[in-house]
Amino acid sequence: MPDHPLVTLGIDPGTAILGFGAISGDTEPVLIDVGVIETDSHVPMPERLKILHAETTRLIATYHPDVIAVEQLFFARNVTTAIAVGQARGVVLLAAAQAGVPVAEYSPSEVKFAVAGYGKAAKSQMQEMVRIILNMAEAPHPDDAADALAIALCHAQTAPFEARIAERGDSAWE
Amino acid sequence: MPDHPLVTLGIDPGTAILGFGAISGDTEPVLIDVGVIETDSHVPMPERLKILHAETTRLIATYHPDVIAVEQLFFARNVTTAIAVGQARGVVLLAAAQAGVPVAEYSPSEVKFAVAGYGKAAKSQMQEMVRIILNMAEAPHPDDAADALAIALCHAQTAPFEARIAERGDSAWE
Repeated sequence: MPDHPLVTLGIDPGTAILGFGAISGDTEPVLIDVGVIETDSHVPMPERLKILHAETTRLIATYHPDVIAVEQLFFARNVTTAIAVGQARGVVLLAAAQAGVPVAEYSPSEVKFAVAGYGKAAKSQMQEMVRIILNMAEAPHPDDAADALAIALCHAQTAPFEARIAERGDSAWE
Repeated sequence: MPDHPLVTLGIDPGTAILGFGAISGDTEPVLIDVGVIETDSHVPMPERLKILHAETTRLIATYHPDVIAVEQLFFARNVTTAIAVGQARGVVLLAAAQAGVPVAEYSPSEVKFAVAGYGKAAKSQMQEMVRIILNMAEAPHPDDAADALAIALCHAQTAPFEARIAERGDSAWE
C-alpha cells in the first residue's frame, strides 16, 4: 500500500464513450473526479484511439493514480463490439504501462459484490450505492461514468485485503 | 499517390505474435522486410501492449510507410479472443495515428482475391502466391508474417485503382 491515501482511477473503456472515475482512500473513499471522454463516430478509428490514449495519459498525469482499475471482459454483444471495446481497452492499458501504473482487473460480479454486496445487483442499485458511498448529491451519469466509479470502488474496498495478502509475499493483483 | 514508389506496411495484429511485412511499389511490388514481434505470455498484458506499440512505432520510423494495411475483423473464435486481438489492433492503429500514417483496411476475402485471384483461396495457396509475387526463395513463415505480407500486397495492388478514384475526388480508403 502507498504511504498516502490510495488513489484509484477506474476506467470503463469504449470507443464512443470512455467512463472514468478517480477516488481517494479505501475504507472511506472520497470522490476526486468523474466524467467521460467522448469521440465522434465520424472520425477515423485510429484518430479516435489517439484521443482516448492522450486523454487517459492526461488523467494519469493529473491524478497520479496508484492503480488503474478496469473490468475484465468475457462478454460482449458480438465479436465486432468485442474488437471495438478491445481496441479502446488496449490504448488504456498501454497508457497505464507507459506511465508505470499497475492495472487491476475485476470481474463484473466482483464489482457488484464489492459495491452493492450482491454479485447480481441491478444497474440502478449499483448507481445508488456508488452515490451513497461517495456522498454524491445525485447518482453519477452517464452509465459509463457510474461504471468507472464502481470499478474504482471495487479496487479501493478490495485493496486493504490484497495489501495484507501482499505482505505475506503473495499478491493477486500485481 | 506518393511521388516515390508506394511503401506499404502490412500488419497482422495479435498479442502473442504480431506479423509485419513491408513492401515497395504497386504493380511490381518488392519485399523490404518481413517478420514477427512476439511477446511472452507470462508478461502482464499492459507491458505486452507497450512492447507491441513501441515495436510498431519503430517499424514505422524505420520504413516510413505511406500506408499501414490491416485486415478488417468480423470474426474471431470467441469474444475473449476478439478482445485480445482488439487490444493489439488498438495499439497498432494508435501508433499509425501518432505517426500520421493513414490506415487502410481490407476484408479477408478482398485480401485473398487481390493476392490469389480467388476470394476463398486456402492459406497454402495464399502463401505460395505471396512467395511468387515477391520473388522469395521460400514461402514466408510463420503464418502471421505471411498474412501481413498478403495484406500489404492487397493494398499495393488496389492502390493504383484507388488513386484514380481519388483523383476524381472520392477515396474509399482515406
